[in-house]
Amino acid sequence: MTTPRAAIINVTGYIGVDIARVLLRHPEVELACVTGRSLAGKPLAEVFPHLSASDLVIQPELDGSIDVVFSAMPHKASAEVCEPLVSQGLKVIDISADFRLKSLAEYESWYAVQHPCPHLLDSAVYGLPELHHEEIKKAQLIANPGCYPTGAILALAPAMASGMVEGDIIVDSKSGVSGAGRSLTLTTHYAECNESVAAYAVGGHRHMPEIRQECALLNPSLGDVVFQPHLIPMTRGILSTCYARLSSEWKAKGDALAKSVAEVYGDFYKDAPFTTVVGTPPATKHVWGSNYCHVYAQADARSGRLLVISAIDNLVRGGAGEAVQNMNLMCGFPETYGLEALPVYP
Amino acid sequence: MTTPRAAIINVTGYIGVDIARVLLRHPEVELACVTGRSLAGKPLAEVFPHLSASDLVIQPELDGSIDVVFSAMPHKASAEVCEPLVSQGLKVIDISADFRLKSLAEYESWYAVQHPCPHLLDSAVYGLPELHHEEIKKAQLIANPGCYPTGAILALAPAMASGMVEGDIIVDSKSGVSGAGRSLTLTTHYAECNESVAAYAVGGHRHMPEIRQECALLNPSLGDVVFQPHLIPMTRGILSTCYARLSSEWKAKGDALAKSVAEVYGDFYKDAPFTTVVGTPPATKHVWGSNYCHVYAQADARSGRLLVISAIDNLVRGGAGEAVQNMNLMCGFPETYGLEALPVYP
Amino acid sequence: MTTPRAAIINVTGYIGVDIARVLLRHPEVELACVTGRSLAGKPLAEVFPHLSASDLVIQPELDGSIDVVFSAMPHKASAEVCEPLVSQGLKVIDISADFRLKSLAEYESWYAVQHPCPHLLDSAVYGLPELHHEEIKKAQLIANPGCYPTGAILALAPAMASGMVEGDIIVDSKSGVSGAGRSLTLTTHYAECNESVAAYAVGGHRHMPEIRQECALLNPSLGDVVFQPHLIPMTRGILSTCYARLSSEWKAKGDALAKSVAEVYGDFYKDAPFTTVVGTPPATKHVWGSNYCHVYAQADARSGRLLVISAIDNLVRGGAGEAVQNMNLMCGFPETYGLEALPVYP
Amino acid sequence: MTTPRAAIINVTGYIGVDIARVLLRHPEVELACVTGRSLAGKPLAEVFPHLSASDLVIQPELDGSIDVVFSAMPHKASAEVCEPLVSQGLKVIDISADFRLKSLAEYESWYAVQHPCPHLLDSAVYGLPELHHEEIKKAQLIANPGCYPTGAILALAPAMASGMVEGDIIVDSKSGVSGAGRSLTLTTHYAECNESVAAYAVGGHRHMPEIRQECALLNPSLGDVVFQPHLIPMTRGILSTCYARLSSEWKAKGDALAKSVAEVYGDFYKDAPFTTVVGTPPATKHVWGSNYCHVYAQADARSGRLLVISAIDNLVRGGAGEAVQNMNLMCGFPETYGLEALPVYP
Repeated sequence: MTTPRAAIINVTGYIGVDIARVLLRHPEVELACVTGRSLAGKPLAEVFPHLSASDLVIQPELDGSIDVVFSAMPHKASAEVCEPLVSQGLKVIDISADFRLKSLAEYESWYAVQHPCPHLLDSAVYGLPELHHEEIKKAQLIANPGCYPTGAILALAPAMASGMVEGDIIVDSKSGVSGAGRSLTLTTHYAECNESVAAYAVGGHRHMPEIRQECALLNPSLGDVVFQPHLIPMTRGILSTCYARLSSEWKAKGDALAKSVAEVYGDFYKDAPFTTVVGTPPATKHVWGSNYCHVYAQADARSGRLLVISAIDNLVRGGAGEAVQNMNLMCGFPETYGLEALPVYP
Repeated sequence: MTTPRAAIINVTGYIGVDIARVLLRHPEVELACVTGRSLAGKPLAEVFPHLSASDLVIQPELDGSIDVVFSAMPHKASAEVCEPLVSQGLKVIDISADFRLKSLAEYESWYAVQHPCPHLLDSAVYGLPELHHEEIKKAQLIANPGCYPTGAILALAPAMASGMVEGDIIVDSKSGVSGAGRSLTLTTHYAECNESVAAYAVGGHRHMPEIRQECALLNPSLGDVVFQPHLIPMTRGILSTCYARLSSEWKAKGDALAKSVAEVYGDFYKDAPFTTVVGTPPATKHVWGSNYCHVYAQADARSGRLLVISAIDNLVRGGAGEAVQNMNLMCGFPETYGLEALPVYP
Repeated sequence: MTTPRAAIINVTGYIGVDIARVLLRHPEVELACVTGRSLAGKPLAEVFPHLSASDLVIQPELDGSIDVVFSAMPHKASAEVCEPLVSQGLKVIDISADFRLKSLAEYESWYAVQHPCPHLLDSAVYGLPELHHEEIKKAQLIANPGCYPTGAILALAPAMASGMVEGDIIVDSKSGVSGAGRSLTLTTHYAECNESVAAYAVGGHRHMPEIRQECALLNPSLGDVVFQPHLIPMTRGILSTCYARLSSEWKAKGDALAKSVAEVYGDFYKDAPFTTVVGTPPATKHVWGSNYCHVYAQADARSGRLLVISAIDNLVRGGAGEAVQNMNLMCGFPETYGLEALPVYP
Repeated sequence: MTTPRAAIINVTGYIGVDIARVLLRHPEVELACVTGRSLAGKPLAEVFPHLSASDLVIQPELDGSIDVVFSAMPHKASAEVCEPLVSQGLKVIDISADFRLKSLAEYESWYAVQHPCPHLLDSAVYGLPELHHEEIKKAQLIANPGCYPTGAILALAPAMASGMVEGDIIVDSKSGVSGAGRSLTLTTHYAECNESVAAYAVGGHRHMPEIRQECALLNPSLGDVVFQPHLIPMTRGILSTCYARLSSEWKAKGDALAKSVAEVYGDFYKDAPFTTVVGTPPATKHVWGSNYCHVYAQADARSGRLLVISAIDNLVRGGAGEAVQNMNLMCGFPETYGLEALPVYP
């Protein structure tokens, strides 16, 4: 087999450039082309000095023979770019939200745009390997999950699939600032967000329906999902604290509850190379710079409550790393290729 | 009237020294004595260079004529120190948890010690001015609230008092690291907690019963209080995100809900000089270094949920400033004396 | 005497709004008007929630009777705005660089613009109270010093005035990010500058001639001033590390050197309410949020070197606080009015 | 060839555990044993959750067959541990300072201890691959450089070797807090060092003689080295800003100066896989988490000054990565093995 040639459309955002970082060291794929509008013509190493080892030049458009494409364009624009690539038979991994929601109505309501190619929604696969491993292998178009949904769904999936909980779910997430992207805003201006914490998108965040969709697939009787993100003064990482009520069946387990919870979580992720069920509450630092997700679950029979906490690196596991993991699955490589680096601590 | 003479027992912790900072600029009180065991004999300005304007020397024990005492000792030790001072007729403000919980059993269960002077629990006043203004004026012994409870109770009190909510309450709090004190721990070692976020005290934190006690005073039918604190990489500040269910009566308000919520919150704090109901989600930076608390409430009739967010500086409003505000009330001064400084932004 | 009415032109930058914070609590001055182009018409408390205690509305232009004006406009625009105000007899404190350099040629070379009103350069007073106390009292137009020059000059002035050093001076400064202002840039985007340090303006920074001018006034035989600023991941504070060679006379002092250095520094600042000579190397945290400057000097007879380190809060001592101190002197108030707040630690 | 078995003595410090992180993914070496006194018996993954992929248990002492040892013990204790291992014929990489200074007198003066095995000083090789590449290949005992010296020497070496500069050198370094280690101190307590910067070891730091030794090897007429470290609020990274005077020969180059400087620096590092001469001032973020060093040099003919700035990750390039690079050279592997990961940005 010849080495697949990969391209990144819009390499200049944080997820785009992190895909470049991973692919430049991937053992089986060649990063052949990176594009970016405003910075076209500049060496990648000049715009991003941490990639000084690369001699790629940012292109205005895709160029040359390409086998697999990562689109890091904004939503809507991304679908417009992806559609012809899919038609040409390329493998496409879309980082935007365009193919994540299976309900066209929900997409158009939350994103307030008309979907450029709704006919692709059916065949697109939601690229969370822990839930859709086999579909991803066969997919031609992947909807790479959002950063918050990755952490929240990985926290909740075993509880959903096992009927452990019922009723509403509250997900209180704390994200580093890189999640807001590389575009300049007052919210992400250093002096404004350093030494401060605030909730945002109070009243509704676009990642909620994505969390709800995947949880409801596992547990159709799911109640409301209340999702509240916060911005905290760090660069990378998302911690999601999830509050749920035990179902009456699970609450009745009494002294056996803790063991049962541990078994369900352990079993669910026993084949997942990057999701680790941990025995103490995780810190985002434990997964910094890596594709790992740490999940901690604690149930209390008396109060009937389940608390689950997950920690990810929002740009790797919640973006670039997950995208490369999806590519590995699509291309038939071991899914850990290029992603073996351990978290950088402290 | 002569100028009251104040003392701080155990000035060397973060709240103790912040009381010193405030009192050194108080217009009507003289900081006459500060104590500290291990650093006794050293000039305060040497141990704490930000207080270079002071020529106080840290004393091993209280010394000279004193009218009002702040005890910043650890719990149990603090009660032991406060009891004789109360007997001598001094005004005492206890920063520790020793006199906060009215239930002796609850105190001894959560703190795992025997209370040195339970007979003082009845007369001690919980020093949250927004709830106990008139009692504080007449008190001789004040239990200064915990940092988390200050933020959480100020967020929830109007909803509790008005019957706006019912059932369980979830309080998800995010605190700066100074809340963990000046004693060295791995958890507060810079390289460990910088660029990271984690939950702690999962399964139960001592501030929960304090939040519950004060909320239940306002709404005896309150359900469980689930309180989950998190440590985030900043020095000062606590943001508390509170999740509750509207009572059926309030849920039925429909389109009038938002206005009613605003009225209840506005009325509740209309005379509070330091608690401001704000119209957009608060950031802890908006109150940094000040005694202000910003509270934001948002209700949703469809889902029947109330979200309330409060922001405080954990060392000022959640400690030193609140203590001085209590002193002002006890001494008959305007309650804002010494605390007028506006938040330092950015 | 009636209460003077003050105005801030362009309140929306970090120094402008910090002047507002200080003036809103000033005992003798009324903040009567604040202006700002793009945000005109908005309540100050809405744009800056930390000023929720104020009911001022941002005006498009100066409005009403005003006695003293702070201009926080960018350079050139500031001089254009200040000139007519000076003509009308108002007291004017210019935060920009327009009146700092006495040499018109040097100004026009470093700032690459034509000076709008060079005839005011002679009468403008460089507003560093430690050096120009009496002139400031009589001035009508103050050139408020730059943030870096404030720290560097306060570190070097006693050495300059006493003939302690000779030859070139190297000033290596480390600044918090707020010094770069509130305008959005990639350099000050959180994810770019957090967890990173870099030098900038390598090859020449506009504050160098300002440092040189004031040092040369004290020591005309001064050599080159090498000034290299760095951006470090914190919001407020400048630490300046200054390297110089002892003059042969001072090097010869041998064992008496340390005492002589301490005497010169102590004497120089004995009447300065905000500059403190400290006995251990200062941290910017020791002066956070205050108008204080901490200076530490250490000489070594063997190597013939002097090291001086100063710490300031770049927005208060290096901007807003210094401006109010200048106003106090101009208006005949005690120079500490409104600035008594001690540094906020930790 | 069989896979070499490696061990880390005292894995529980930041450099020790970072060596483990790198070796656990090394393609040709097996991490066979890690030791640590106080934590012996605990799984490595429990003490360091970022290494959850490892099933090693921390041992009290070296155990089993070992080919190459990294000692991360404190100085003196490290030499004591290394000596018998050297005698047994193992390859030893000492992270401590014990074998860095060739002068026994200088070592004993700066470290205030008696050297346990001075007879090894001659054969030990200073493990900076850019300077001692061939000696490292043949060495049995490596003195792994200090973090500051790595950055400073890489900045200065080309200038030293080429006769570009003369006289004294000033090195002003800014380090992240992890450089101070994992032991608890007030200086590294989060609330003390966050949002603050300070110089430390004013008057003399132990890394100075190490910088001087290696620079003087390249330029015996070197003057004083003034080295001043600072602690800044970030976890990883060292930026070193170096000030020097051009020699008269180099100053005379005039317009050709910049090109000559670039040539000297480019040539010096043309074969170094991890040291990159960059065209704009580097930020530590550009090398975060990697073994890369970025070096920027700028000379000014008029003033006769050379400024060189280097950026490294203090734990990788200034410790663990450099140690593994040395191991690779000693073992005959490509020197980049295990170290190919690109810097993690942002």
